[in-house]
Amino acid sequence: MEAYIRTGTPLPCNLIFLIEGEEEVGSTQLYHFLPKHRKELACDAVVISDNGIPSLEYPALTYGLRGIAALEVRIDGPSRDLHSGLFGGSLENPAFALCQLLARMKDKRGRITVPGFYDEVAPLSTYERKQMARIPHDDKRYAKFLGVPELTGETGFTANERRTCRPTFEINGLTSGYQGEGSKTIVPAWASAKITLRLVPDQTPAKILAAVKKHLQSLCPPTVRLTVKHGHGGEPYLVSPKGPLAQAALRAMSSGFGREALLMREGGSIPIVAAFKKHLRADTLLLGMSLPDDNPHSPNEKFSLDAYASGMRMAAQLWPELAVACA
Amino acid sequence: MEAYIRTGTPLPCNLIFLIEGEEEVGSTQLYHFLPKHRKELACDAVVISDNGIPSLEYPALTYGLRGIAALEVRIDGPSRDLHSGLFGGSLENPAFALCQLLARMKDKRGRITVPGFYDEVAPLSTYERKQMARIPHDDKRYAKFLGVPELTGETGFTANERRTCRPTFEINGLTSGYQGEGSKTIVPAWASAKITLRLVPDQTPAKILAAVKKHLQSLCPPTVRLTVKHGHGGEPYLVSPKGPLAQAALRAMSSGFGREALLMREGGSIPIVAAFKKHLRADTLLLGMSLPDDNPHSPNEKFSLDAYASGMRMAAQLWPELAVACA
Repeated sequence: MEAYIRTGTPLPCNLIFLIEGEEEVGSTQLYHFLPKHRKELACDAVVISDNGIPSLEYPALTYGLRGIAALEVRIDGPSRDLHSGLFGGSLENPAFALCQLLARMKDKRGRITVPGFYDEVAPLSTYERKQMARIPHDDKRYAKFLGVPELTGETGFTANERRTCRPTFEINGLTSGYQGEGSKTIVPAWASAKITLRLVPDQTPAKILAAVKKHLQSLCPPTVRLTVKHGHGGEPYLVSPKGPLAQAALRAMSSGFGREALLMREGGSIPIVAAFKKHLRADTLLLGMSLPDDNPHSPNEKFSLDAYASGMRMAAQLWPELAVACA
Repeated sequence: MEAYIRTGTPLPCNLIFLIEGEEEVGSTQLYHFLPKHRKELACDAVVISDNGIPSLEYPALTYGLRGIAALEVRIDGPSRDLHSGLFGGSLENPAFALCQLLARMKDKRGRITVPGFYDEVAPLSTYERKQMARIPHDDKRYAKFLGVPELTGETGFTANERRTCRPTFEINGLTSGYQGEGSKTIVPAWASAKITLRLVPDQTPAKILAAVKKHLQSLCPPTVRLTVKHGHGGEPYLVSPKGPLAQAALRAMSSGFGREALLMREGGSIPIVAAFKKHLRADTLLLGMSLPDDNPHSPNEKFSLDAYASGMRMAAQLWPELAVACA
């Protein structure tokens, strides 16, 4: 923006900067802040750069995001770790009970078994699937990039659809008993799992969390005690790719990258966009520039300098485009 | 023994002390030591006090032990932890794959599903089951003592049989992904489990470990990589309760506790007894005095002073009894 001003051209629209440092842990403060500062924050559109593009050659506008629902599942068995020789066989092993419980959360087709889980999932339109298929993708190269021997997932969908448009049930962590070198012959007192579910339009975190909890409770044997703790939740998001805001962004992106920008949905969650819509009544443009190999949330996270330069060119085009679109 | 000598009575038999500090981690050194020192260690019987009795009111001679086979199972998925939003849904979650794999190791009747697992299990005789049933036991009190809402285990056996005479598959520990406070939205790169199986006569650790590994390999999906690492193993043990050694021990125990000693089997493993049999050709008498609430391998481990006193009286009777039995 400073570069823009230095050219002597006045900014064609007003810009409000809203800086958020809690996005990865649920944006608790920002959710309180937004309704209190509606007036200062009033705007025609929100721009966030917290997502990615398929590659520098194929820039794409993200018009949808997955939501998220987090929970922690804990199984308590005996009141303390027990000697597995003296007692093992006569009581439920909490780690085993946890494995059995979690194993039942997906079926052989990769579908989540929670009753009603797919009730609110908006089906993918033929148009959307076609647009998505324009983005170059090679399953073998993608598997190699992830480091897995083979891809997998819900039957009936492509890898890109599975990771952007379909809901998931992921174990983020497992903890139980002895974790050091060698062995320790115990029946552990408890076992726990960190879980996050990715949600898609029109699922809502509260409804999904309640359904998952109920399902876990119905499957848990009476030989152990189950505790389900709800974590943060975030709504999924979808904006029409044919509206004036998205079209303005597509033009700016095409100009910034020197190539026609495509359309895509993103698998990650930026839960605050639903709050912007609610409190500011403004749609959000997702104009992140990160590349698939940037390793977000992983060791060796990076950001490409080429993407940075293209992003600056895009931004310079974006303000006049938005000024016209919102006029 | 010092007290015995102080009475002025000469010891009626020779005693050799063999002190072992590695029992909990597989007795690696002792297994090498025994065959090298056969001559110095030559004896008629081995006495070990590393097991327990049902209560001070019901002393019992342990004539059988379970064996053990340890292994570590690790599932590797992507080459690093991945963002569960950007990638989740398109690849196998290693923690989920581990849960599914382990969940399949036991069926609804609590039986281990490894093919051939029960082939070498010697069936419990009616005589043994009757003897075992003489030991007072109350399922509800036992469940309360363990701190579990309900007991469970292999269909068709009592709690005491399950924990002493039947083999088990126990998860001793689970490790995967994020384990701290709150949540971290990753597909973890790997997940692992510490496993020990308790074996009963006539199962052998090598055969069981090979069968378990083969079964795990056959069930593991091609979307992840499985590693099975063998840990320590110990043979189960069984000695005839009607032989002269056991009868001598029963008399000494009855005398020491002032009550008729019963017969029982123990669920724990003392793998070295099989090595004593092999290298010294001597049977082992298991004359431990620990009580069921001594919390072995758990916090607040203790040893009863009453058991200690009765044990001393028993030992004073044991040497002359053994001298006669082995004459």
